[in-house]
Amino acid sequence: MTTRDFEIPRSVLVGDTADNELVRAQTILRNEGVNPSVVMEFTAGAGGTFCGIEETRSLLSRILPETGREVWAMTEGSDIAVGEVALRIRAPYASFGLYETAICGTLASSTGWATAARECVDAAQGIPVISYGARHVHPAVVGVMDYSAVVGKCVANSSLIGSRLTGLTPSGTMPHALVLMIGDTVRTVLAFDRHMPPEVPRVALVDTFKDEAEDAMAVAKALRERLRGIRLDTPAERGGVTPALVHEVRARLDQAGYNHVDIYVSGGVDPSRIEQFVENEAPVSVFAVGYYISSAQPIAFTADIKEIEGRPIAKRGRIPGISNNPRLARIL
Amino acid sequence: MTTRDFEIPRSVLVGDTADNELVRAQTILRNEGVNPSVVMEFTAGAGGTFCGIEETRSLLSRILPETGREVWAMTEGSDIAVGEVALRIRAPYASFGLYETAICGTLASSTGWATAARECVDAAQGIPVISYGARHVHPAVVGVMDYSAVVGKCVANSSLIGSRLTGLTPSGTMPHALVLMIGDTVRTVLAFDRHMPPEVPRVALVDTFKDEAEDAMAVAKALRERLRGIRLDTPAERGGVTPALVHEVRARLDQAGYNHVDIYVSGGVDPSRIEQFVENEAPVSVFAVGYYISSAQPIAFTADIKEIEGRPIAKRGRIPGISNNPRLARIL
Amino acid sequence: MTTRDFEIPRSVLVGDTADNELVRAQTILRNEGVNPSVVMEFTAGAGGTFCGIEETRSLLSRILPETGREVWAMTEGSDIAVGEVALRIRAPYASFGLYETAICGTLASSTGWATAARECVDAAQGIPVISYGARHVHPAVVGVMDYSAVVGKCVANSSLIGSRLTGLTPSGTMPHALVLMIGDTVRTVLAFDRHMPPEVPRVALVDTFKDEAEDAMAVAKALRERLRGIRLDTPAERGGVTPALVHEVRARLDQAGYNHVDIYVSGGVDPSRIEQFVENEAPVSVFAVGYYISSAQPIAFTADIKEIEGRPIAKRGRIPGISNNPRLARIL
Amino acid sequence: MTTRDFEIPRSVLVGDTADNELVRAQTILRNEGVNPSVVMEFTAGAGGTFCGIEETRSLLSRILPETGREVWAMTEGSDIAVGEVALRIRAPYASFGLYETAICGTLASSTGWATAARECVDAAQGIPVISYGARHVHPAVVGVMDYSAVVGKCVANSSLIGSRLTGLTPSGTMPHALVLMIGDTVRTVLAFDRHMPPEVPRVALVDTFKDEAEDAMAVAKALRERLRGIRLDTPAERGGVTPALVHEVRARLDQAGYNHVDIYVSGGVDPSRIEQFVENEAPVSVFAVGYYISSAQPIAFTADIKEIEGRPIAKRGRIPGISNNPRLARIL
Amino acid sequence: MTTRDFEIPRSVLVGDTADNELVRAQTILRNEGVNPSVVMEFTAGAGGTFCGIEETRSLLSRILPETGREVWAMTEGSDIAVGEVALRIRAPYASFGLYETAICGTLASSTGWATAARECVDAAQGIPVISYGARHVHPAVVGVMDYSAVVGKCVANSSLIGSRLTGLTPSGTMPHALVLMIGDTVRTVLAFDRHMPPEVPRVALVDTFKDEAEDAMAVAKALRERLRGIRLDTPAERGGVTPALVHEVRARLDQAGYNHVDIYVSGGVDPSRIEQFVENEAPVSVFAVGYYISSAQPIAFTADIKEIEGRPIAKRGRIPGISNNPRLARIL
Amino acid sequence: MTTRDFEIPRSVLVGDTADNELVRAQTILRNEGVNPSVVMEFTAGAGGTFCGIEETRSLLSRILPETGREVWAMTEGSDIAVGEVALRIRAPYASFGLYETAICGTLASSTGWATAARECVDAAQGIPVISYGARHVHPAVVGVMDYSAVVGKCVANSSLIGSRLTGLTPSGTMPHALVLMIGDTVRTVLAFDRHMPPEVPRVALVDTFKDEAEDAMAVAKALRERLRGIRLDTPAERGGVTPALVHEVRARLDQAGYNHVDIYVSGGVDPSRIEQFVENEAPVSVFAVGYYISSAQPIAFTADIKEIEGRPIAKRGRIPGISNNPRLARIL
Repeated sequence: MTTRDFEIPRSVLVGDTADNELVRAQTILRNEGVNPSVVMEFTAGAGGTFCGIEETRSLLSRILPETGREVWAMTEGSDIAVGEVALRIRAPYASFGLYETAICGTLASSTGWATAARECVDAAQGIPVISYGARHVHPAVVGVMDYSAVVGKCVANSSLIGSRLTGLTPSGTMPHALVLMIGDTVRTVLAFDRHMPPEVPRVALVDTFKDEAEDAMAVAKALRERLRGIRLDTPAERGGVTPALVHEVRARLDQAGYNHVDIYVSGGVDPSRIEQFVENEAPVSVFAVGYYISSAQPIAFTADIKEIEGRPIAKRGRIPGISNNPRLARIL
Repeated sequence: MTTRDFEIPRSVLVGDTADNELVRAQTILRNEGVNPSVVMEFTAGAGGTFCGIEETRSLLSRILPETGREVWAMTEGSDIAVGEVALRIRAPYASFGLYETAICGTLASSTGWATAARECVDAAQGIPVISYGARHVHPAVVGVMDYSAVVGKCVANSSLIGSRLTGLTPSGTMPHALVLMIGDTVRTVLAFDRHMPPEVPRVALVDTFKDEAEDAMAVAKALRERLRGIRLDTPAERGGVTPALVHEVRARLDQAGYNHVDIYVSGGVDPSRIEQFVENEAPVSVFAVGYYISSAQPIAFTADIKEIEGRPIAKRGRIPGISNNPRLARIL
Repeated sequence: MTTRDFEIPRSVLVGDTADNELVRAQTILRNEGVNPSVVMEFTAGAGGTFCGIEETRSLLSRILPETGREVWAMTEGSDIAVGEVALRIRAPYASFGLYETAICGTLASSTGWATAARECVDAAQGIPVISYGARHVHPAVVGVMDYSAVVGKCVANSSLIGSRLTGLTPSGTMPHALVLMIGDTVRTVLAFDRHMPPEVPRVALVDTFKDEAEDAMAVAKALRERLRGIRLDTPAERGGVTPALVHEVRARLDQAGYNHVDIYVSGGVDPSRIEQFVENEAPVSVFAVGYYISSAQPIAFTADIKEIEGRPIAKRGRIPGISNNPRLARIL
Repeated sequence: MTTRDFEIPRSVLVGDTADNELVRAQTILRNEGVNPSVVMEFTAGAGGTFCGIEETRSLLSRILPETGREVWAMTEGSDIAVGEVALRIRAPYASFGLYETAICGTLASSTGWATAARECVDAAQGIPVISYGARHVHPAVVGVMDYSAVVGKCVANSSLIGSRLTGLTPSGTMPHALVLMIGDTVRTVLAFDRHMPPEVPRVALVDTFKDEAEDAMAVAKALRERLRGIRLDTPAERGGVTPALVHEVRARLDQAGYNHVDIYVSGGVDPSRIEQFVENEAPVSVFAVGYYISSAQPIAFTADIKEIEGRPIAKRGRIPGISNNPRLARIL
Repeated sequence: MTTRDFEIPRSVLVGDTADNELVRAQTILRNEGVNPSVVMEFTAGAGGTFCGIEETRSLLSRILPETGREVWAMTEGSDIAVGEVALRIRAPYASFGLYETAICGTLASSTGWATAARECVDAAQGIPVISYGARHVHPAVVGVMDYSAVVGKCVANSSLIGSRLTGLTPSGTMPHALVLMIGDTVRTVLAFDRHMPPEVPRVALVDTFKDEAEDAMAVAKALRERLRGIRLDTPAERGGVTPALVHEVRARLDQAGYNHVDIYVSGGVDPSRIEQFVENEAPVSVFAVGYYISSAQPIAFTADIKEIEGRPIAKRGRIPGISNNPRLARIL
Repeated sequence: MTTRDFEIPRSVLVGDTADNELVRAQTILRNEGVNPSVVMEFTAGAGGTFCGIEETRSLLSRILPETGREVWAMTEGSDIAVGEVALRIRAPYASFGLYETAICGTLASSTGWATAARECVDAAQGIPVISYGARHVHPAVVGVMDYSAVVGKCVANSSLIGSRLTGLTPSGTMPHALVLMIGDTVRTVLAFDRHMPPEVPRVALVDTFKDEAEDAMAVAKALRERLRGIRLDTPAERGGVTPALVHEVRARLDQAGYNHVDIYVSGGVDPSRIEQFVENEAPVSVFAVGYYISSAQPIAFTADIKEIEGRPIAKRGRIPGISNNPRLARIL
């Protein structure tokens, strides 16, 4: 994944997404003629996989003055501990005070998604994980959600906009709607094969009408060596995908000579269910994780002024002065 | 709150936020010449306060053909039960299939936020609740988050962009940064009073440097009847705001004749802590809730085709045909 | 169910199944010339549905002297409480002392099975329950197990020997082995229909090769009004039978006009799972319960001498003299 | 313990204990002229100590044809894991299909009892354990229950019929009834000593009328070196046998010079109570276990056809073809 | 119980038991010439049965000046709630400041004991409870402990010094040591009967050497109508006293015509065990409670200055000024 | 700490604190002319830090005859295990039987307090702990409570009477009452400094009126190098003392050059809260523990006669004869 400059929406740049008390503070300080150089530090409220700093850097590079600014931060994707300072800005307060809300929010959501993705990846012990949760978040953040999942070590993601941010080929198989409209799994797979370019992997969804094992055998027989994989997505109403089902489908495919066919598992997959598959040595080729990643709770970041014109200060409850964190690197 | 048409971002309209498998399905169906009229139903995966349907209506009114379409839905803000159908679309599949991801995501996030807000409001038993969580979500969704909180019965919200959607005056007091830069709570309050228009309520933050009770008395003495309220935001490092603190500050203010001064409580407020304040009869005037609302998990919605050209159908695990839900009303 | 005399095996009658210390006691007492008339009471160690007294009566009628004996007992199938006396024998000790082991054992096993069956029946709230657990107990007790289940209000049982004791027609559908050997569910059902007498209900097993809903529709189409029911027995490896599956199969059958086809549910059914089906209002026609009934723990009975030649006595820890229990009726 | 051929009851041999659906299957297959050579595997539903295969071998040797049959199995008494195949039969289906119920039931009950016995033996860490539970199961299975307990490493058992199967001398002391009728513990012990052959160990029951320590001293004084042991069986109403009681009785016996007298402990003994005695270093000589062994839940076995005429097959949810288990040895 | 003036030890009166910081405060205030009239309130840290105020009144009546003092308090033995003010003193600080430690300590210990006693009495539902815990607290507080237990509704207590404070006849039976030295329970009871005045009730301890039921019958036979009761005190090593034991002893006594003999139960008795006896309808005549009462944790009282020279004041965290509690009555 | 002879109160010496049944036993034995030499052993009912034996030795040296007595005991402050004999007395019963209550009570209370103190000391891992709980126990035992805490390794205690027993300088700072009456923390500290001798350490209480960090800086600035420490005692109503508060105050003091000022922590301190401070590496200088130590439950001791005139004996449930414990040393 190549890091690139994020586009910052106009509403953020003009301050519309800020808490209104920050707007009022700008007015008061201007009228009072107060605009000191301050140090503000952003601290993580929980441990996880740090994410959102590239987007934040794009924002800061647009708003901070070229001189008199100094920005230090941890690296995108690094591990972060509870209470650790992840970002430090030194600049005149008036140049960035309004953006405290947006910076905290960007880091909070992105770090939340990346952390959840990383938990799945760690649980999978080497089996690849795909981010598949676009349908569970507001479309305005689908792109950064998928980007964060890839920062959390997912190998691919399902949304087009996310793929544009990560530079990866979007992943996916076929919707149940397609099979329902064409009316039969085998015919759907053959249509897919006819109309998709050769570089798109043929992965068949095998639980729309029939038993998964039966359907898997049918599509393997139809596409033979052109079939890249089958995807198990048994609904909860039918007990969901179980480790035993993966074992059985694998065994039936292998007995018929289709050893090359991968098995994708989706549907309510989360770290604890991944652990069950791993413990039962179920031969899963790829996990597709949706809700667990995209529903991840944000990891709160708190912003505190620690120095004013070089003098240590802090509100009650915080320790005055700059924190010591050798993992910060200067980014602006 | 007047309902208004939401602006739908261009990336959503062109399909960039869709799962790529939906894009592929469009291609295949077009090449096969398949485009039946279908009924798709959207079902809630958990109970809560339904939200996001106004934004969805805006989207659908732009993409569905004027004739041959039929959209039924539950009302914004109504209670929804697990397994209940909340939206039903009948239209040619090609006209809306691509937007399944965006529709599910809009309903999921919005319903999640509205539900969390409503839990706080219910716990508060009549004490007003303000949405204050802009800093904990990505700025791209701050507006819809605050809008959803108001659908969940919050009386106000803190972001400018949210206020534009809800038509309410944005709420807020003053940031700790302001007090730190001016250097003293009383001087800050006096500056606030000088520079803010008279209609902005004077609410002082009283925990920046000193004990809350001491500081509350000092600002009350300085602004007297012009002081609308004080806000308690004790950090966790100092034990957070407790019911006993509210009782004590109220008693000290009343003993000095400042009965008109409201007490706002913020900082880690959630339904269980609200219940503690209510059970202890703490005289709170307003609760400001941040993380609990904005970190709310989305409530998943599943989309299923239930009819194709008037014929009941469903994938395995679902019951074919249109569900019976008399609470749906036609919206398009 | 008509009560009948049980055949008592020779090994029991000759005392081979007794604890050897009872044999020794017989020898010692004979040599000492001691043979008082005693009262022995049998007390339940836990509450439940009392069973086994008919078999015990058969035994006692063969061994006790015609005169000088008196036997009181609770009725087969009545509720029994912990600590309640269920059987009282007054007779010369030498005539029955040896059979203490067999009497306790008969009551313990039978009451255990009847109690477990009754828990299922109570949970099912009117939906019939069948005893299907012959394969989980030693064949030497299959008959009394099934008999006890019927005492516990099961409407039928699966073993031939059990049916002979209860006088009911044995219940059952068809084994998976039959479908595997014939090679197809529909062909199996047609063969069943050809070779079974008309009074045997046609109940098809629909999970051998295909998805249950698909197979159910196929057999309904093949046998039409001659199909009495289908049996769902989804293995745990496929998630087991769920309430949602029953709802779906019912809906699909009804939509095709097969309202007359019953749905039998089997496979790991126990009271807590029955409650789930009932709470979800799943349209189950019959529950078939196996392991839960036949694996039921025996309910221990203790035997105590309470009178010797009309004088109250008891070992340490028991209260001397006859217990008061107006629910006992004289049976011999 | 020498393995011997079990007598198979006539009701089993004629198929009366079978599920009636197996009888029907026989009829249908015969009418259809279907009788393939099949492989059926029996798999354990839980881990434990495998038992019942000797009895099963007796049955199979009587029903399978001399040629064309092949039976593989694990050894009586070996450890078995959940999901492990314990028995594999290859033969024409018509020759053994009817006996699936009896084979599963024999293995289930026997393995359940053996496993429970083994848990007690393991907990006792070298202190001998006796099977004493005949009074808690139906007399028709007392023999196989005691046999299974000995397979699970009990050193003896209490029933005559069980001793005939195991070839061990039956164990036991004296019933409370005997003491009650003779009227005094010491007189009972003297009578026992008078009338029993010298090879029967003199073990006195010491809790019928008096405190156990007092009574133990009295019988030791009466029989002196002829006393082999005393048995503590304190009823639950008196707090049951405690480790402290064993320590105290041992100390009192030793202080009076009766170091040769063993202490037997009975009454509600199970693995967790055995562990308490062992942890408290209570000087128990022998544990007598009743209810825990004879009430053990059966360990379910499932029977699956895995090959028909040499072709791998299986019902949905099972893996087709013969399982790999190098621990199976050919027994027929 | 008649209330009487408690003797206050000299060490308390001279201030030796005070925290030394109070001594220092006296010195500093004297040197600074500061001695205002103050109001100090004592607040309960938990709910319970208030006790110790009579002893506190004795102390205050000795140290406070006759004029200018005012003392209000709740009544000895009344229910007190957490956070309730139980004592209010208005007087010159120098006259009583030193005694804050002693007053808090007196109320804390006494209220703790009275509360524990009351829990036992409430659990016993009308069966009398005796305080028997002198051996589990330091002898210096045995008197006030027993006094507090009687305030908590015990009907009697075991120590001489406690009886002097409560004016009740001391309770008790006989120690095990006495039986051991005389060598036999019946002989001990006869000696007791010979040497004790007729008004002392004859209650025999029946578990020293023999089984309780056997011994109880023996002493009843020896003293006949002169026997008032027997006391069951089975040690934990023998399973403790159980409800079943009480039932059995009661039944054996009644069967022999000793209906007039009471049953006292002691040994590890606490509210939860009392509830077991009550639930099992065990015919207990008297409970003797030791450790549970005398080991009761003190209920902390905090002392706060609420007024100085008529002006409301309080330290941070407390509400300034006198609390409203209409249950306080003036006692000095 | 030098061991010294404890003064035994007259009420104990005359037997007033004894259970009245011991008084009766004395009368009966005297009338019967029974006064054997006996061995009585005192056994701990739970593990802990043994305490109270010095006071017991003082009592025994006053009551036992010079000849014919023998007393063995464990050392004050040693670890004791559950069931371990801690004290053995051999003497004529009449010389000490009456004092069984007082000896058990002295050991029970003292061992309870010492054990609780030791748990705090162990949790603190080298940070000193002070006993501060005089206000939570009856004044009659304040001295022995503080003495026991020092046996449990506390470095000091707060009461004058306790310090007399331990020979240590009493510890303490200043009461809130003093600050309230002088009206300001800094003025209070200056008065303290004026009137206290130079050897008394200046430790300021900094939470009476203002925020702790603010007040700590003010007193440090006022007394400078003469300030020995500040004490944090934040009330629960303000969230109590937290590890974060200690870190912050330490940082603020150090940043201003007051590295020499210690931080004392008090208020609801117990082992689990101490562990939190230690785990968070909070720079606490001293812990002051009140309620946890002084509310400690007594550790019960049981007294049993084990020999009469050299002959082993014991009541039912105990093992006759002297126990083997090589850790006992002869003390009289």
